[in-house]
Amino acid sequence: MDSGLVMVDTHILESTRIPLDEAIGMRWSPKGFLDIPVEPEKLRSLFEAARWSPSSRNEQPWRFIVETKSHPEGYERLFSTLTESNKSWACQAPLLIAGFAKKHFDRDNMPNRTAMYDTGGAVANLTVQAVSLGLQVHQMGGYDMRLLKELYNVPEEFEPAAILAVGYADEGGRSSRVRLRRELNTMVYEGVWGRASELLHSKL
Amino acid sequence: MDSGLVMVDTHILESTRIPLDEAIGMRWSPKGFLDIPVEPEKLRSLFEAARWSPSSRNEQPWRFIVETKSHPEGYERLFSTLTESNKSWACQAPLLIAGFAKKHFDRDNMPNRTAMYDTGGAVANLTVQAVSLGLQVHQMGGYDMRLLKELYNVPEEFEPAAILAVGYADEGGRSSRVRLRRELNTMVYEGVWGRASELLHSKL
Repeated sequence: MDSGLVMVDTHILESTRIPLDEAIGMRWSPKGFLDIPVEPEKLRSLFEAARWSPSSRNEQPWRFIVETKSHPEGYERLFSTLTESNKSWACQAPLLIAGFAKKHFDRDNMPNRTAMYDTGGAVANLTVQAVSLGLQVHQMGGYDMRLLKELYNVPEEFEPAAILAVGYADEGGRSSRVRLRRELNTMVYEGVWGRASELLHSKL
Repeated sequence: MDSGLVMVDTHILESTRIPLDEAIGMRWSPKGFLDIPVEPEKLRSLFEAARWSPSSRNEQPWRFIVETKSHPEGYERLFSTLTESNKSWACQAPLLIAGFAKKHFDRDNMPNRTAMYDTGGAVANLTVQAVSLGLQVHQMGGYDMRLLKELYNVPEEFEPAAILAVGYADEGGRSSRVRLRRELNTMVYEGVWGRASELLHSKL
């Protein structure tokens, strides 16, 4: 086993013994979805959750393209940008969302150093909202960025961040593979870089 | 009012009329904190929530430095990197956390295009967990990056993402200023860039 990684059960709420918000603890990245559309009111609330994310200078650099199977031509357009390996499972998702980050501030056109960072936060909030509504989100980095920008006429100013497959997960098809994560003491430091924080070990 | 922005009440759960997960809807960025330490078990669960975020190739590019007022020398070190304007209110926060993103993949040292994006997601999860436990998080971009890297001996490979002030918010001192956000139809497109998604308006 690699140093810094810990083997855990797939059901992390039970395995970590550290209580987590349910929408955090129940999140996973399914490769199978049920053949059920996402209700419009749920879809709206996903974006509403993203909308209320914090961002540097309240820039809200995130933008989204959404396509559903109920509009097959549009769905196929976004789907066509995925790698073959992602296509093989993402075809089950009733909903695809592409996320983008605006590279410069509206106000003064200065580079926005945290545009991707803030967009990642907005998508995480969207994901929390999804899980809270019984949905799951699987983020993908494997897609043709050039094709995506071309098909949707995306301005140069906007950087693709990820494509999300969204839907009701096929829990039955869930892999039993353990999920690997770094140990906390390899990611949380105190006093100086690389020294594990004592706070992680102080008495409960 | 700027186009694309909508005025809403500070209490968004009531104002948006779109139901949100409580930890999303109750989040705000306080400039006042109560003089109450963050319990160690809560602190741990913040990082546990970050830990279970998804990331490209499961790289988990995020790292954190945490300092609390219970260790005044360390707290002062991280605090000293803030701008004067942030110092003026962040001094009330019992907990400061600096977040960083690793720029290249461990596996093959290739650039990780989504390191900042994934780190933003991890911090958003940390924030959801905080709100779920009654805490609030205020992210700051105003700090001396060079000083931060120097004081903590941060390797060149790690890019500072944000410094977070964390604690129990002073709700009484909350500003009554309205919170501005873009309208959904200026951030969610369908079919082509810039065309508002019809899904936002379809029947509930």
